[in-house]
This record gives sequence, structure tokens and C-alpha cells, in this order.
Amino acid sequence: MFGGDKKLGTESYKGVRDFYPEEQAVQNYIFSVWKKVVESWGYAEYDASILEPLELYKSKTNEEIVNEQLYSFKDKGDREVVLRPEMTPTVARMVAGKFNEIPMPARWYSIPNLFRYEKPQRGRLREHWQLNVDMFGSDSPYADAEVIMLANDIMKKFGAKLDDYEIRINSRALMDALYKKLEIPEEKSKIISRIIDKKDKISAETFKEVLEKEVGETAEKLIVILESKDGVFELMSDSIEAKYLADIISILEKHGIQNLKFTPTLTRGFDYYTGIVFELFGTNSENSRSIFGGGRYDNLINDLFGKNVSAVGFGWGDVTTRDFLKTHNLLPKLSPITQVWIVVPPETNMDEVYKIAAELREKEVKVGVDISGRKLGDQIISAEKRGIPHVLVVGTEELKSKKYKFKNLATREETSIGLNDVIKCVK
Amino acid sequence: MFGGDKKLGTESYKGVRDFYPEEQAVQNYIFSVWKKVVESWGYAEYDASILEPLELYKSKTNEEIVNEQLYSFKDKGDREVVLRPEMTPTVARMVAGKFNEIPMPARWYSIPNLFRYEKPQRGRLREHWQLNVDMFGSDSPYADAEVIMLANDIMKKFGAKLDDYEIRINSRALMDALYKKLEIPEEKSKIISRIIDKKDKISAETFKEVLEKEVGETAEKLIVILESKDGVFELMSDSIEAKYLADIISILEKHGIQNLKFTPTLTRGFDYYTGIVFELFGTNSENSRSIFGGGRYDNLINDLFGKNVSAVGFGWGDVTTRDFLKTHNLLPKLSPITQVWIVVPPETNMDEVYKIAAELREKEVKVGVDISGRKLGDQIISAEKRGIPHVLVVGTEELKSKKYKFKNLATREETSIGLNDVIKCVK
Repeated sequence: MFGGDKKLGTESYKGVRDFYPEEQAVQNYIFSVWKKVVESWGYAEYDASILEPLELYKSKTNEEIVNEQLYSFKDKGDREVVLRPEMTPTVARMVAGKFNEIPMPARWYSIPNLFRYEKPQRGRLREHWQLNVDMFGSDSPYADAEVIMLANDIMKKFGAKLDDYEIRINSRALMDALYKKLEIPEEKSKIISRIIDKKDKISAETFKEVLEKEVGETAEKLIVILESKDGVFELMSDSIEAKYLADIISILEKHGIQNLKFTPTLTRGFDYYTGIVFELFGTNSENSRSIFGGGRYDNLINDLFGKNVSAVGFGWGDVTTRDFLKTHNLLPKLSPITQVWIVVPPETNMDEVYKIAAELREKEVKVGVDISGRKLGDQIISAEKRGIPHVLVVGTEELKSKKYKFKNLATREETSIGLNDVIKCVK
Repeated sequence: MFGGDKKLGTESYKGVRDFYPEEQAVQNYIFSVWKKVVESWGYAEYDASILEPLELYKSKTNEEIVNEQLYSFKDKGDREVVLRPEMTPTVARMVAGKFNEIPMPARWYSIPNLFRYEKPQRGRLREHWQLNVDMFGSDSPYADAEVIMLANDIMKKFGAKLDDYEIRINSRALMDALYKKLEIPEEKSKIISRIIDKKDKISAETFKEVLEKEVGETAEKLIVILESKDGVFELMSDSIEAKYLADIISILEKHGIQNLKFTPTLTRGFDYYTGIVFELFGTNSENSRSIFGGGRYDNLINDLFGKNVSAVGFGWGDVTTRDFLKTHNLLPKLSPITQVWIVVPPETNMDEVYKIAAELREKEVKVGVDISGRKLGDQIISAEKRGIPHVLVVGTEELKSKKYKFKNLATREETSIGLNDVIKCVK
């Protein structure tokens, strides 16, 4: 009738995921930890459409994303639109849009899905969800420190120990001040920044070569500074940029974040960062990728929309989080939401069964009714397959006596009790 | 630096919405009511990507959607992809994909966002969210009745009264049997169905004319049947199709759903329905649109994917829900999530303030710290602007005495209490 004889495949589009209930339960677990912690820090949720005008990305993000990784197309009205690759331009647009109404500083979060056209691989898919946490309108080092403290609280809530991960931190402002001190021309700073970002991924020789091509003799000096533990801080000790970063690090250490590592080679991909940048890495060698990252971007909202609002925040992906939790064995066993499975002997009045279910629901018990008409034993097996913890038998006898056979499928315990006791047992 | 001199507009893409925190709170309220009720009925959440292969829609949905309303484009690998316009083909794909592993009957739900390219208007936007509830693998009338009972529970949870809405119900199978009895050729049934769907939107003359063009003299007979209250049931009383629908109606009435209206002109747009179809309409004349609708689609999964799974379910949009709740004054006043705003007198040790905040968070209090450095009075005004109900003053004095000024901003009550009492007051 519809498909004709040719049947379709059941695979999803490449690089995206189907979330069957078991997978969705993991997703819900991660989202609920995120939400719980960020809301306890006073952050309010916002959201927006995944579709954005192309011009929002043309003007800022680095070219790699716009040219190669962007999902863009023309709508039927010939508008160029994009499936957003990141949330920061969107939230910048929203903050600028109600600039005069939003009480500042503002604490906002969202868990958007994002698209990038890239080769699917471990930790990277074409679509992922990402917790975005941002503080707008504060220049205080406590704003920078707060988003990192909050992120660290999330790691704790996931059950991670301090030595399971390290937080690498740097400051774009400090690095720019360093380049200036080394008399590297300002127009070179962006390219230098990108080369330094690659330092640990290329050989020392190549690194030196590439750097020399840009800044000549200064390259050697720069390498010595980058490789000495406190080289940057020593050279720049008088600068306000070093002081600001030192303040943030000191606040974080006072709050028990000892796994902080000043990392002058950390720059992060986006051009819009202006102050601190940070990334969290797992320490397990099987999974040592970046789990999340962020930074301060004080000029973006002004550059794009002409509203002067400072900002600091991070993005934290679900795919890297899952990988981290699995590697460290931190994913809890998740039961289905349904608490009680009502099994129904043959010839029972089904309307009465539904009334019993309704009574339980009134008391916030989550109940499914077996309407298969199968044999009682098969109905119980069905509950077990679904992972539902309790079975309640509701037959003609039970409806008359108002005592119901109630079975805990884990302990195999079976009792005959009234509905109020069922409610108590479940809670 | 990025945008140059030309600044961008802050509007979202046409026909989609930005959810600022106050708007997101409404969205979260609607979603939480949906989730709470469907989970209490034993439904498990699933999800999928918004991107689907185009072929999934080419083969089934009615042509109007595929040709005019579909957001489709080619990805950089030349694959034709679509922003899903509805969830049913996706969930059909998923159920078919794990056909052998999913315990049947399966109760599933999701709250996806969906896209249609259409002229934005009241109750219709280019992107909306939709609760999708489906029962797979059951032919029992209790499956049909259950999804309607569940939907009715949601209306109750929203605070709607029975006379605020009516549920119109029909059966495609019954109508097809009627056409057969009237000797209308089978190949005409789909077009007749679409004409009947338009009955209340066109004049009686036009309706008759269009119908006559298709079925000649039978048109008059059909109109008499459609316009008599129980015409269809009387004529078809011996059919299994009438009996099945009567069973469902009887179950629903036994469960207190008195606002049910058998409506033979109700057909719904999708071609894939095979059994009952239903829609819920508000009775307020200001907002009498359909709020949700659904039906049984027993052949879809087989037609598309070659797996024989019956199904019944509905889709319930957020936009129509908002309109209904506003029209009936049912949207509750929603406070922000943050419960306590810590205001900080000048010269206070900020690290100690953050420790107090951490203690409160440990006890599940949601706390924001004012880091603005503004005057105390202005910090309190800021809390009021944000709608946060309580203010806690944490200054040098308070840190020493461990007694904190605590103010309820609604009642203006002010006390000086320890942290444990703060926790108690908030809960």
C-alpha cells in the first residue's frame, strides 16, 4: 500500500544515534546530574531552535567549521540556514536581544543538540548534546572560577575522583601579553596561538620549524618559556593578565580543586576567547580526550550584535561524558521507570483492573497493565524481561478480597497485601 | 575583529522560537506534566536524531507534506536528509530495527521537536515540540482506550475540566466498511475520506457536488448517514468494525470520559491510519482548534520495514497546548528555580561566601551568589527582579556569628538564623 514491495532499512542517518529506552535512560541520567548541579548553582535554563541563519556563523567561528563542518542549506524561501554547530553564537544572540531586560550578571544553561559534518569516530559524532553553562555580565575572577567550580561539582556528582581527571587552564589574554612582550607583531598572535595549540600533536622539530617561519629567532625563546613549568608566569609576573589568572587559580585551589594544571599550550579552537580558557581531561590513558572546555569571551556579543556584555562559560558533550563514565566504571545500573507490572489472570474484568491501576497512579506509583491476554506465568516473565521490579496480580479473587499477590522480582519474595501496602512497599 | 562594523540582527530564524528562561519555564512545566503522567502509565522514553533519510517520508506520508512542507536538503556526502516533520516514521523505524528484542506490547513515549515549512500562524509554527505516545504490538481495544485514558489524565493534570474539551473519535476501518457496504469502489475510499474530512470547512452544496463527482447517486445516501447522529452505527451494527469501536467507547465511558463524541467526518491527515482516529478539541470558541490527535496504524511498520507490528498512539503539540492553557487560564505562576540569593556586603571574604553556598547546595538548596560588588540594597533589588523568593546576607559579621540575616521577599519577613534553619525555611 505505501512502501510497495521494497522495504526500507532501519538504520538511522550516519553519525547520529537512536536512543532506545535503555540508551535514553543513560542520556536522562547524564542530563539529570547536569541539571541538578547547575540549578543548585542558580543557573536558569534557556533553549532555542536548532535552526539559525547562516550569517551568524559566517562572521565569527573559525573557517574550518564554516567551510567544511557546517550543516547548511537553503530553505524553500531561499534563506540560508544552519543546524547549529555550537550554542555560543545562539546564546550571544539571545542575550543581545534582551540586553536591557536581563538582570546582570546572568547565569544561564542549556542542553542543546549540535551538528557537525565530520567523520564519525570515538568521542565524535555528527550530532551530540552539550551542556552549555554561561555567566554573562561579570568581570570578576569569581565568575571564571565559579563555572569551573560548578563543573568540578558535576564531576563529583558523577562519582569521579580528583585523580581521575585534570583541569588544564590558560589565559588568552596572558598569552597575547606574552607575545607582545616578546615583540611578536599583533597580527601574528592568532596564527601563533594555533601553532602552539598543535605543539603536543607534532614533533619538536616540526613545531620549531613552523614557529620559526612565523617569528624567526623569537621561536627558540618562546619554546623555552612554554616548556618551563612557570616560565610564562615568571616572565609576566608584573602583568595584570598574570595576576588575574593567578587569582582564579588561587580561588579554585582554596575550594579544593587541586588537579588544576596551568597549560600555556592550551588555546582551544575558537577565535572568540579573550581571557581564560580551560579543558578537562580524563587521566586514564584509555580515554585521555578532552571531556569539556570553555573560556571567557568578552568581545563576542559586542562584535556580533553591538552590545557590550562580558561572558565566561563552557560546553560539555554527552558523548565524551559517556566515554569517561564507561572507562571509569561510573555509569550506575539504571532500572526502568515503571515500578509495578499488573498481571491479569484470564476472565478478569479489565475495567476493574484499570481502576486499580488508577488508584496506584493517584499515589504516584508508576504502573503498567499487562493487556496481552497471555498466561499468567508468561506475563510475569514479560515483567522480568522489562526489568520491572514488582509484579501485582489483579484477578477476580483479588478484586473481591482486596488482597493482591505482590511479588518482588529481585528477591522473589511474595506477599498478599492491600493497595496501601503496595504503595508503601514500592516507595 | 569578528563582525567588523556591520552588526547582526538578534531575531531567530522565521517561525521558530527562542526560549528565554521565563519561556523555558513554561515549556518545562508542560513537559513535566506530560512526563509525569505518561510515566505513571508505564511508558518508557526514547529519542532519535532530528535528521532522517528522505526515503523514510517519500514512501508514505501524504504528498502535501513531502512536496511542500518538508525541510529537506543534501548533506555534503550527497545524501538526501530531512528535518523530521513527525515522529511516527522514526519510531516505526526504531521498533522495526529491534523487532526481536523489544518485549511486546511496548509502551513508548518521546517529546521530539518537529519541523514543517509553513506560514507561521496561531497554533502553527515551523518548529514545535510534540509528546508522542504509542503502544506497539497489541490488538486489544484496551490498547486504543488506554492511550485516550492517558491523554485524558494529562488534561486533568493540567487542571482542565471535562467541559473544557471534547474528544472526537472515529474509525477508519468502520468508514471503509461503510464505503464497501455502499458499494463505493475500494480505490475511491482514500479520496472519499479526504473529502469527508473537509465537510465542516466547506458549504453543504460544495460538499455534495464534490462527493457526487466521485460516487454519483451514493453521495446523497452517504450524506444522510453522516448527518444522522448514529447513522453509521445503525447501518453497520453487525460489523466487527462497529463492535470494536463501540467496545472502545464503552471502556472510555466506564472510566469517566463522558465528553467523547463519535464523529464520522473525522479522518485525520495521514494515510497510514487503519483503525480508530481521535482528536481533542477545546470547547472555548476563542480556541477551538485540535489540541492533539492520533489513531491506530497497524500496517505502517510492515509496509515500510516488513515487520508486522500493530500500533496505536497520538501526538500532542506544545504550541496548541500553550494556547489552550492560556485560553483557559490554566498556566500556573512559575517561579525561577533558584531559591536563595546570597547578597554580600563590601569587604567580605568571597571564598568564605562560596563555602556557605556550598553547604546549602549540599542540602539541595538552589543558591546564587551575588558577585556584582554592588551596594547591598541594589543586590536585594536584583534578587527581586529575578523573582528569587529568599535573600541571605553573608557578610563578615554573619560569618563570625554564624547567624545570617534571612529575608522572605514576598512577605518581607526578616530573621537572623543559622544555616540549618535556612534550609528548613526554604523546604
